[in-house]
Amino acid sequence: MTTWWCEHALIDGTVERGVTIDEREGRFVRVQSDTRTPSGATVLQGFTVPGFANAHSHAFHRALRSRVQAERGSFWTWRRIMYRAAEQLHPDNYHRLARAVFAEMAVAGMAVVGEFHYVHHLPNGAPYQDPNAMGQAVLAAAADAGVRITLLDALYLHGGIEGGGHKKLDGVQHRFSDGEPDRWVERVGRLNPSPGQRIGAAIHSVRAVDPDGMAVVAEWASAHDAPLHAHVSEQTNENDQLQSWLHCTPLELLESVGVLQTRFTAVHATHLTEHDVALLGIHNAFVCMCPTTERDLGDGIGPTPELVRAGASLCLGSDSHAVVDQMTEARAVELNERLRSQQRGIHSAPELMTMATTSGHRSLGWDDAGSIAEGMRADLVTIDLDTPRLAGSPGDLLVEAAIFASTVSDITSVIIDGKTVASRGLHHVVDVAAELNACIEELLT
Amino acid sequence: MTTWWCEHALIDGTVERGVTIDEREGRFVRVQSDTRTPSGATVLQGFTVPGFANAHSHAFHRALRSRVQAERGSFWTWRRIMYRAAEQLHPDNYHRLARAVFAEMAVAGMAVVGEFHYVHHLPNGAPYQDPNAMGQAVLAAAADAGVRITLLDALYLHGGIEGGGHKKLDGVQHRFSDGEPDRWVERVGRLNPSPGQRIGAAIHSVRAVDPDGMAVVAEWASAHDAPLHAHVSEQTNENDQLQSWLHCTPLELLESVGVLQTRFTAVHATHLTEHDVALLGIHNAFVCMCPTTERDLGDGIGPTPELVRAGASLCLGSDSHAVVDQMTEARAVELNERLRSQQRGIHSAPELMTMATTSGHRSLGWDDAGSIAEGMRADLVTIDLDTPRLAGSPGDLLVEAAIFASTVSDITSVIIDGKTVASRGLHHVVDVAAELNACIEELLT
Repeated sequence: MTTWWCEHALIDGTVERGVTIDEREGRFVRVQSDTRTPSGATVLQGFTVPGFANAHSHAFHRALRSRVQAERGSFWTWRRIMYRAAEQLHPDNYHRLARAVFAEMAVAGMAVVGEFHYVHHLPNGAPYQDPNAMGQAVLAAAADAGVRITLLDALYLHGGIEGGGHKKLDGVQHRFSDGEPDRWVERVGRLNPSPGQRIGAAIHSVRAVDPDGMAVVAEWASAHDAPLHAHVSEQTNENDQLQSWLHCTPLELLESVGVLQTRFTAVHATHLTEHDVALLGIHNAFVCMCPTTERDLGDGIGPTPELVRAGASLCLGSDSHAVVDQMTEARAVELNERLRSQQRGIHSAPELMTMATTSGHRSLGWDDAGSIAEGMRADLVTIDLDTPRLAGSPGDLLVEAAIFASTVSDITSVIIDGKTVASRGLHHVVDVAAELNACIEELLT
Repeated sequence: MTTWWCEHALIDGTVERGVTIDEREGRFVRVQSDTRTPSGATVLQGFTVPGFANAHSHAFHRALRSRVQAERGSFWTWRRIMYRAAEQLHPDNYHRLARAVFAEMAVAGMAVVGEFHYVHHLPNGAPYQDPNAMGQAVLAAAADAGVRITLLDALYLHGGIEGGGHKKLDGVQHRFSDGEPDRWVERVGRLNPSPGQRIGAAIHSVRAVDPDGMAVVAEWASAHDAPLHAHVSEQTNENDQLQSWLHCTPLELLESVGVLQTRFTAVHATHLTEHDVALLGIHNAFVCMCPTTERDLGDGIGPTPELVRAGASLCLGSDSHAVVDQMTEARAVELNERLRSQQRGIHSAPELMTMATTSGHRSLGWDDAGSIAEGMRADLVTIDLDTPRLAGSPGDLLVEAAIFASTVSDITSVIIDGKTVASRGLHHVVDVAAELNACIEELLT
């Protein structure tokens, strides 16, 4: 058993002082507020919050950080550069890169990652000897970095929408495709997760999956009680193409084949109709906003207050990893909305904290994580209050301070499943900067 | 003489390697690229850039960070809380708070601050025994923190616009007012700056200053070759009120009384007409964007590409200090525009770096600072490249990396006027966090 004593901790939505927390086998077994430091306890000075959930990641996009900032263009020109990185991946360099990226997430207090995984096969589209060599490399990387993972294995069959239907795959897209939905089912059934790992499903997008394929994935997710994620309406031209072909929105199509009957997360959901918002609300779906990526790629600002009012639950993802900082992600949801509405205080700091923790975990299938309470997984992230960013914050507004003023650099301790994985910006196993330098250099030159 | 050797440095817009820099009496005397480390040189590992200019600051607003995030409302409800802090200031606590805030800026690589100063008098509106007691407290604070300052002393006479003219001052606004423009001229003439300090002028806004007052300030600025700043069109209702009263925009009014004939900086400039943009361009004015404050307060997104095309020079300010991080400020100019236009690469990283350095310095009257070149003031900010944020950046895209991926925490060394004022997040004189904790607690409780 381990005992921690927190100067301040977020318990059941309230900032409590002097919190003693007992852990056994990776779970909280007792949580008591207003205590003195018990002998033998490890002191966590500052403000301790639950572990964050990074609900949408493409680990290899981390290689593009800075490198995609010299160009003019759009989402689509950016995608060409991203495809060039995807061409270079193989199980070994993917494992090494993902390990460093997941370690960067661990340093940032992320206890779980939802890896939306679509680079499955050899460059010519043929399967590896182990058809899950790439997925297993990603699972191993997360285990090495001490981060839980939901591997959201994506079905990807087509090269986009053009005129009256789907286009053929082009170039690197052959790596993404299983050819037909049943082969995806067969392959995914053979994935072999370790403890602290789950397999979820993903429909890449309406660009890449036809209605029959969507139905197969939805059925699989339903049968396995697995989370199901899909990119939805990130770009207006995807909406326009589907509208002229099938006269519906991406969400209407997904709903019509049963996708919203699952534990479903719409990723991005930037350009929605009122009917789309209502559908997500009625089905109590999750919506994963990726604000730092969505601003980086020029996607736009999604209708977050409307989604919350309709009944959807928001969660957060770092997606392309332009930024890996869950508090930056959380405050951007509110700050973007302030820019749009010219009003303040649309999403409160406690609501934004729930997006970053509990909701993200639930979107990824981890109902037993994301809060500091008896029986939950023992994830703790401690934020130093004596930094230039946080100094001067009053004790009753620490959630506001953490959400609106902190950065990753203020995190002094990260505990995941009861184990300390990072302290003061340093991962305990992976030299994050050295590994990123080495493997990105190797990947892209 | 001091000699530094920089692994990488930004020289005349280009990333150079192995740069040896000699300094004497606070100025660069020689800058050479592609050199080996000379004996006796101090090595600056990483990427060294010119000192940043924070062109718009209200130091005491720092006390509000986190505290204003619990409320719902607008700019105007936020202003009520800000006024409560303004009521509590006196020369001693203002000096202590400003010293800690300027030290936070020094840690963030800001070599100069433009302090837009308007809390001049006793709570009842009477002058202090030294009528410049508050301004001198601010000047002393900057000197203590090792940061250059342009004290932009603001004329403030009226309590807002209502119906057909200006309203009377209300409550704390009496502290801001000199009663009439000539008394402002007389008081400002007695300010006593030290070396590394300049006096500039400010017109608070069209809400607070009438056309006669504006003309007096413009004449003073012109006669003294001093920078002149004004808040312009931050909020639509200020525009609407002036339109129904004088049937013009704030910028049209300022232009009509000669303000744009000076070295003028429009602060915010969020809600402009095409004519406003043209006026700023024709007069080669500066426009100070404060993106982290403008999103915090729900102001909106200013027309930055249009301003640049018209001929205005953009610079950056941290304003209310919701964030004190010039790279966060710089990238927000581009990322906001991506959200607005759904295009990428509108303002390039080198252009954003110029806003953060040279243009900000020029807006504040320091034409001899903001770049690493012979004869310029010896300001150097060094960014560590081996952090989780910067790792993996290619050597030829370090400006892109610094602008789009770095935070204050990556800054390892800050040299201002030849003196090292901060290293690895710690100010050499001021304990930033302890001082902020102590003086904000005292100010607001």
